[in-house]
Amino acid sequence: MKAIALSRRLRRTPFSEGVEAAGVKGYTVYNRMLLPTVFRSVEEDYRHLKDAVQVWDVSCERQVELRGPDATRLMQMLTPRDLRTMVVGQCYYVPIVDETGGMLNDPVAVKLAEDRWWISIADSDLLLWVKGIAYGYRLDVLVDEPDVSPLAVQGPKADDLMADIFGNAVRDIRFFRFKELEFAGRKLVVARSGYSKQGGFEIYVEGSDIGMPLWNALMEAGKRFDVHAGCPNLIERIEGGLLSYGNDMTDDNTPHECGLGRFCNTQSAIGCVGRDALLRVAQEGPVRQIRAVEIHGDPVGGCDRLWPVMAGDMQVGNISSAAYSPDFNTNVAMGLIRMTHWDEGSEVDVITPDGVRPATVRETFWI
Amino acid sequence: MKAIALSRRLRRTPFSEGVEAAGVKGYTVYNRMLLPTVFRSVEEDYRHLKDAVQVWDVSCERQVELRGPDATRLMQMLTPRDLRTMVVGQCYYVPIVDETGGMLNDPVAVKLAEDRWWISIADSDLLLWVKGIAYGYRLDVLVDEPDVSPLAVQGPKADDLMADIFGNAVRDIRFFRFKELEFAGRKLVVARSGYSKQGGFEIYVEGSDIGMPLWNALMEAGKRFDVHAGCPNLIERIEGGLLSYGNDMTDDNTPHECGLGRFCNTQSAIGCVGRDALLRVAQEGPVRQIRAVEIHGDPVGGCDRLWPVMAGDMQVGNISSAAYSPDFNTNVAMGLIRMTHWDEGSEVDVITPDGVRPATVRETFWI
Repeated sequence: MKAIALSRRLRRTPFSEGVEAAGVKGYTVYNRMLLPTVFRSVEEDYRHLKDAVQVWDVSCERQVELRGPDATRLMQMLTPRDLRTMVVGQCYYVPIVDETGGMLNDPVAVKLAEDRWWISIADSDLLLWVKGIAYGYRLDVLVDEPDVSPLAVQGPKADDLMADIFGNAVRDIRFFRFKELEFAGRKLVVARSGYSKQGGFEIYVEGSDIGMPLWNALMEAGKRFDVHAGCPNLIERIEGGLLSYGNDMTDDNTPHECGLGRFCNTQSAIGCVGRDALLRVAQEGPVRQIRAVEIHGDPVGGCDRLWPVMAGDMQVGNISSAAYSPDFNTNVAMGLIRMTHWDEGSEVDVITPDGVRPATVRETFWI
Repeated sequence: MKAIALSRRLRRTPFSEGVEAAGVKGYTVYNRMLLPTVFRSVEEDYRHLKDAVQVWDVSCERQVELRGPDATRLMQMLTPRDLRTMVVGQCYYVPIVDETGGMLNDPVAVKLAEDRWWISIADSDLLLWVKGIAYGYRLDVLVDEPDVSPLAVQGPKADDLMADIFGNAVRDIRFFRFKELEFAGRKLVVARSGYSKQGGFEIYVEGSDIGMPLWNALMEAGKRFDVHAGCPNLIERIEGGLLSYGNDMTDDNTPHECGLGRFCNTQSAIGCVGRDALLRVAQEGPVRQIRAVEIHGDPVGGCDRLWPVMAGDMQVGNISSAAYSPDFNTNVAMGLIRMTHWDEGSEVDVITPDGVRPATVRETFWI
């Protein structure tokens, strides 16, 4: 294991003090900000996430805020997903592509008002793209990164813990909807969402000063639910088929390759960057797609580079994420697989750093 | 020390194999890519950099390539520095700002041809800004990130080592100029530049496949010069006053605050983003500027967040980078200081995590 060299450039968060007190053991860097990756062990954190409730510092999901008369027009220019029926109080998962249809980010758009949006981003400086487009089109909109840091509460006991802090109103929040609820005299956006399949919420903490008070309140109230500090869990997110921008897709990939074609309404009369390229892709279909892949044999190590997927001497894909799953007692993985081998049950070989492993392509993830 | 959790998202480089074999002990993440921070110790690496020659994997200085009829027009739109007299074969340090004059990056522009440029970037996804502007203005230019990974050769023996590999032609390359020189049958851009004050070169390695052959050739030829793998050195770069984007400046800062006003020719008849805002700044002058600061007393730890600079009860600035310098036997630091206290010799206090320290503002860095 190598050390991470800390500097101001790898930004701390409003919750870093709590994360450190909870004994964080490893970090990654996400949007130039520290993101914890392990507290006890990845396996222990996994078990606990599925059984209890965790508080996650996901401040690195930075917000791009759009404000002004052209905010909604700009938001629609940014994504091929049709936003016309989206109402205030909703969150949408929105692929964002460049003019060739290559994925630039896969954020969640939060509609705060008709003239005000947040884009809760994955790992790329989407702010620069949005500002560049707004400037080039001379739109009447302010684009910046506000002092908003999401804190996720995830796990089967998330509703109970959140109700202790925000009241029973949280229980009525529907999936990918939000309410504005009060903490310490401030109204905070609380959405039913999060980067796990165990259920829970994301609190958009507006104002760094209330970060630690909220963290401490959740930890205190959570004692009776066995709350722990946690973080997005590699095993759980692969089992659940949650993609990670930069790991499982880059600007080389179209939404259709990533299984996100259903979020591309390019046939509708919406104007968006990349529409022409995506219309072409939609017509012809992708020749490779992200698939679940089961890698047989002993537990594999972490996937820090693409692992080639072979059919005999022919490369038919790459594995981009992999981990050993205790619950399924096998190695769960995902990667881009060519159409010749993407059908359920295709037998392939994966070249891992520890040798060649037989593997099976699956139609569905482990859910 | 916390571990860094590796994944494909933190990109490896064409030289990672060599870096690992050389015993890298720590990494940071820069442009979503691994950047080594220490091999033996920061102090040993520092001594060696000043005495011998090092090979640095600075692949993380990614290139934004502009190609096409509008490439030069776009390049000039991006920076307030006047590029009209720049010739093919030159490199320019170019502040890049947004519409409000806030720094987005401080890269080096490399003029390859009248219609082809590389922008060798600091730590922000400048590619997205450049693509957004090009798209919004409907410019006839292709913008992408090519397979180019800089390898730096730095230190007093850099000329001798480089001459062994590329011939004596390297000795004639002037500062911030480049030549195209051959290695393994490929023409590579070799510039006299680099992120140290010890002199040396940056080789723009085009084609990942020749990364390790070049690394190995340099290590083999370098034996008689005591070559070692190295990396940008925190102590040496603070002594030399080399700014680090994300550490010492962000989009909150104007070029003038960063001491880069001399690179802003906003009075010239150039069209660039942010010109109006910078004209205003140039007229009024900045109220705070980056200064060298000597922090007295025992060696300070790493500066992973801003340290307030106080004059009595009043905050007059922040320290953004700091390290103990063996050569100057003091703590060298830099940060933004308000004009009331930026004069040479101003006595201030710095609030470090280990307590309050007396400090002195300096006019010049340690060079």
